[in-house]
Amino acid sequence: MGYPDTAEGFMIESQKNWQDFKKQEFKLKPFEDRDIDVAIDCCGVCGSDVHTINGGWGDCPLPICVGHEIVGKAIKVGKDVKTIKVGDRVGVGAQIQADLTCNNCKADQENYCPNTVDTFGAPYKDGTISQGGYSSHIRAHEYFTFKIPDELESEVAAPMLCAGITVYSPLVRLGCGPGKKVAICGLGGLGHFAIMWAKALGAEVYVLSHSPSKKEDALALGAKEFIVTNEDEWYKPYAFTFDFILNTADAVHKFNMPNYYSTLKVWGKFHCVGFGDEPLPQMMAQDFAPNGCSFGASHIGNRPEMLAMLDLAAKQNLKSWIQKVPISKEGCAEVVGKVNKNDVRYRFVLTDYDKEFGQRG
Amino acid sequence: MGYPDTAEGFMIESQKNWQDFKKQEFKLKPFEDRDIDVAIDCCGVCGSDVHTINGGWGDCPLPICVGHEIVGKAIKVGKDVKTIKVGDRVGVGAQIQADLTCNNCKADQENYCPNTVDTFGAPYKDGTISQGGYSSHIRAHEYFTFKIPDELESEVAAPMLCAGITVYSPLVRLGCGPGKKVAICGLGGLGHFAIMWAKALGAEVYVLSHSPSKKEDALALGAKEFIVTNEDEWYKPYAFTFDFILNTADAVHKFNMPNYYSTLKVWGKFHCVGFGDEPLPQMMAQDFAPNGCSFGASHIGNRPEMLAMLDLAAKQNLKSWIQKVPISKEGCAEVVGKVNKNDVRYRFVLTDYDKEFGQRG
Repeated sequence: MGYPDTAEGFMIESQKNWQDFKKQEFKLKPFEDRDIDVAIDCCGVCGSDVHTINGGWGDCPLPICVGHEIVGKAIKVGKDVKTIKVGDRVGVGAQIQADLTCNNCKADQENYCPNTVDTFGAPYKDGTISQGGYSSHIRAHEYFTFKIPDELESEVAAPMLCAGITVYSPLVRLGCGPGKKVAICGLGGLGHFAIMWAKALGAEVYVLSHSPSKKEDALALGAKEFIVTNEDEWYKPYAFTFDFILNTADAVHKFNMPNYYSTLKVWGKFHCVGFGDEPLPQMMAQDFAPNGCSFGASHIGNRPEMLAMLDLAAKQNLKSWIQKVPISKEGCAEVVGKVNKNDVRYRFVLTDYDKEFGQRG
Repeated sequence: MGYPDTAEGFMIESQKNWQDFKKQEFKLKPFEDRDIDVAIDCCGVCGSDVHTINGGWGDCPLPICVGHEIVGKAIKVGKDVKTIKVGDRVGVGAQIQADLTCNNCKADQENYCPNTVDTFGAPYKDGTISQGGYSSHIRAHEYFTFKIPDELESEVAAPMLCAGITVYSPLVRLGCGPGKKVAICGLGGLGHFAIMWAKALGAEVYVLSHSPSKKEDALALGAKEFIVTNEDEWYKPYAFTFDFILNTADAVHKFNMPNYYSTLKVWGKFHCVGFGDEPLPQMMAQDFAPNGCSFGASHIGNRPEMLAMLDLAAKQNLKSWIQKVPISKEGCAEVVGKVNKNDVRYRFVLTDYDKEFGQRG
């Protein structure tokens, strides 16, 4: 077989051996008129990759090839594709299809389409399972394929496609901008983007973290203040201060939520984009009453937000903080192991795809 | 002693004997220049009264006189009072003081003032404990005393002062109005106001209830549809339907939250004003991800909202559904017992204060 019927990638066969990657062929979905084939050049390593392969988020179809922070070159475009041409440098994030006809899709909420297809581990209509970017090729619908601005290097752009948009979308929707005080909780892959975007959008940025060692990075990324949340009564000086908290940390189950809530302005919001494996702390409805606050979460972002984010990064010369690792059986094992231990500042990007998969397209 | 140093009311001495009311004298706070003395004519019976005296919400200062849905006549006004004159018919709700100088107060968020004083069971600066409306008199700060519109009978207005405002405020803040689909969860004292106000504000109102027996009442109050939530898969036809859910039920701990969340539009809100004694169901952050929804709660409302609500009720001739019980040792025991069992449609109002306490003022 081989491309265009199949791609090859580093796959996991069992959630028990989630660091044991094997290079295998997998079937690509049937090519349709708005599809684009991408020869992948690099792929960011997302926490979702790890939660999926190690079973933290439950079962998944096996074998699986993860990775949804993909940048590469368009090598084939369907006859109805209007936004991309062969040779363009493009990105693909965590969503690869939606029905584009439901009320959510028509309202630019395609990331909440009930017929969404995730970039890996989800069934297409014909039964093919989607496979991610630790691989040679991806076949993506045009609506979920984004031209990368010339100003952004591929490796710098890749992590924006999931980590970047996952925080950019709620920042914008929660009203981040001049005059706002925004707290970013957790400084990892998501958090480092959240600080950069929030600052770029004009807000005053406060970082809440239990790791004092990250203070310098937080300030370098644009934070005004760094608050260490395992100091006693850390929250007291910040009563009614933040317009919202964007939580990017997985470890919410260890948080004393009322302490965090107390730092929010009236009707402020604690908004989660970090999804851990553990349930949230037990809460009472009355925990929210002292300032009428709320707790919510969101899932990636929509196409207009993705384009706006890439444009913002290009205009303001904002760069992901990345560590490059050449893709290989060992490279994949190394990066997911380190992400699982939070041992990354702040995003791994798998690179050197030509060496592993050859020149494609 | 006696008025103006003391008032007399029906008090509880022990949370173990929470239906054993005793008529006792209690001290009124020192009279200040913006205070108003009210000779009470009637008082609504709120779930908070019961949660307080039976210990469901924890300890409280004892003995305690509860009741915070108070209507009566102003019989004395401080020299700096501008909005009320002696002889006016006035109402007092669940909040009786705030500092009126903090950022929250200055932003019309006095219901979230960190120095708020609840109408009963809370200490004033001088140490006096506030006591509620199952009593002859209340001494209230002008800012928390509201002129009752002539169109509203006292007994009809009383329950609006807490139950009414508790749902009116979040309805308005969540954008209730024409074109919105609003779900009201739970049909009790709070819920019956929520249906009336939401309909009066122009929204399409859906009632979610586990009691099929309340369907007729819901429709009579203005609901468009009544949805029985203990039918299997009740939520399926309502995927992505409601702009928000206003939950007035205490029993959220028994809810399957993801089912409720699934009925919300993208970034919709499940908003609680019913505060039970039990913790919320265990949740995962990812429960909120399929539509980016959130969970929040609020606490009563502010003065502008209170005045707007009373005005709306007067203009649209909206009436609380009440059952009147003359105040007495036995009357108090009866109403809190029935409220504790949810045996009320939809609000008890204690009446006939002149018979029990004599003509005052």
